[in-house]
Amino acid sequence: MAPKAVVLLSGGLDSATVLAMAQAQKYELYALTVEYGQRHSQEIRCARTQAKARQVAQHKILHLELPDSQASALTNTAPLPPAQTGSPIPATYVPARNTILLSLALSWAESLSSVDIFIGVNAVDYSGYPDCRPAFIEAFEKLANLATKAAVQDGQKFRVHAPLLELPKHKIIARGRELAVDFSMTSSCYDPDEQGRACRKCDSCALRLEGFRQASLTDPAKYV
Amino acid sequence: MAPKAVVLLSGGLDSATVLAMAQAQKYELYALTVEYGQRHSQEIRCARTQAKARQVAQHKILHLELPDSQASALTNTAPLPPAQTGSPIPATYVPARNTILLSLALSWAESLSSVDIFIGVNAVDYSGYPDCRPAFIEAFEKLANLATKAAVQDGQKFRVHAPLLELPKHKIIARGRELAVDFSMTSSCYDPDEQGRACRKCDSCALRLEGFRQASLTDPAKYV
Repeated sequence: MAPKAVVLLSGGLDSATVLAMAQAQKYELYALTVEYGQRHSQEIRCARTQAKARQVAQHKILHLELPDSQASALTNTAPLPPAQTGSPIPATYVPARNTILLSLALSWAESLSSVDIFIGVNAVDYSGYPDCRPAFIEAFEKLANLATKAAVQDGQKFRVHAPLLELPKHKIIARGRELAVDFSMTSSCYDPDEQGRACRKCDSCALRLEGFRQASLTDPAKYV
Repeated sequence: MAPKAVVLLSGGLDSATVLAMAQAQKYELYALTVEYGQRHSQEIRCARTQAKARQVAQHKILHLELPDSQASALTNTAPLPPAQTGSPIPATYVPARNTILLSLALSWAESLSSVDIFIGVNAVDYSGYPDCRPAFIEAFEKLANLATKAAVQDGQKFRVHAPLLELPKHKIIARGRELAVDFSMTSSCYDPDEQGRACRKCDSCALRLEGFRQASLTDPAKYV
């Protein structure tokens, strides 16, 4: 019987590729999408499409109320500030976001008797968020193995897989292409328009477009 | 100006005491109650009362959808199984609960520019939950200081205060009494009746009643 894996699936290019990678590794897939009021609800539509394409065993969409939705440019009601990739950490940072997402994934994994959690964080072509770095992933894995009945009582060992961690964007795109990810149904933009078209200007669009350029591929996503 | 603290407030005896302790330490209080479908919604009413009594700056009640509410006897729809304090970890364990709660508290703390988080976990008179032990709290604190912009970019240091960690229940009760905690408005029972009266039989009632006995005090809570 295939081992189960919980895969955090935002609907972006990275998590769609991670879902395909987990499938290629023969896991039974449990996709977890968390709707926390991010601007880009287009991502949720993309997440549904990706989950369906990979024939996941279950796709769960959780609605999460953040303690302070005004704390991030990604979830607040103000216009998105200009792109500012790298340092300092940009305004689109959501306080403790990946800690919350991994906690929910851990909870579900333990319920499913799964010990494998996949997350599409990347620390090369990224916005400098602290919770996308290897040290964070390691610390969370350590925490998971202290926090849970499955680990402490039953001797299970949780693993947080972050297979994109050290890959530049163009290699993520190349890997996704090998695995037949439909990039037209992935949304990376922080601030798409009402029709779900990407803005070209935000950090995330800039990183994505440069990745496609370096991979010598055309991005099939819709742009304004 | 008083430093701000986020205090996880369930409405139980322990967290009510922790809230009073944080107040005694002159923090400006931000109480966070998470409603995750636990059987004991009486706790939420108690949390409101405790927050009001301590005149907190803000009391936030978040509604959280757990990935699998059927995974714990505390949140599922089946009758509560008999008490089974200690080892093995009982059926009332909620997968990754304190990891999720602390993640949300961390998110709020960071938004508030606070670095102090209080949680009423206890590893002496407790049910054996893995996420109530000192090693878990230390691991979460370490994670918090890798996960956040406040720590990584701005050099802030988050502290997870668990002042009840090593206290037996009767000492928690004595401390709460010194700080004028109204124990009649704290709910510990896992399975109160419709009028909010405690069952006397669950783990949590058993620990509480024994604590009051050892403290030579009468528990003012309502029991069936």
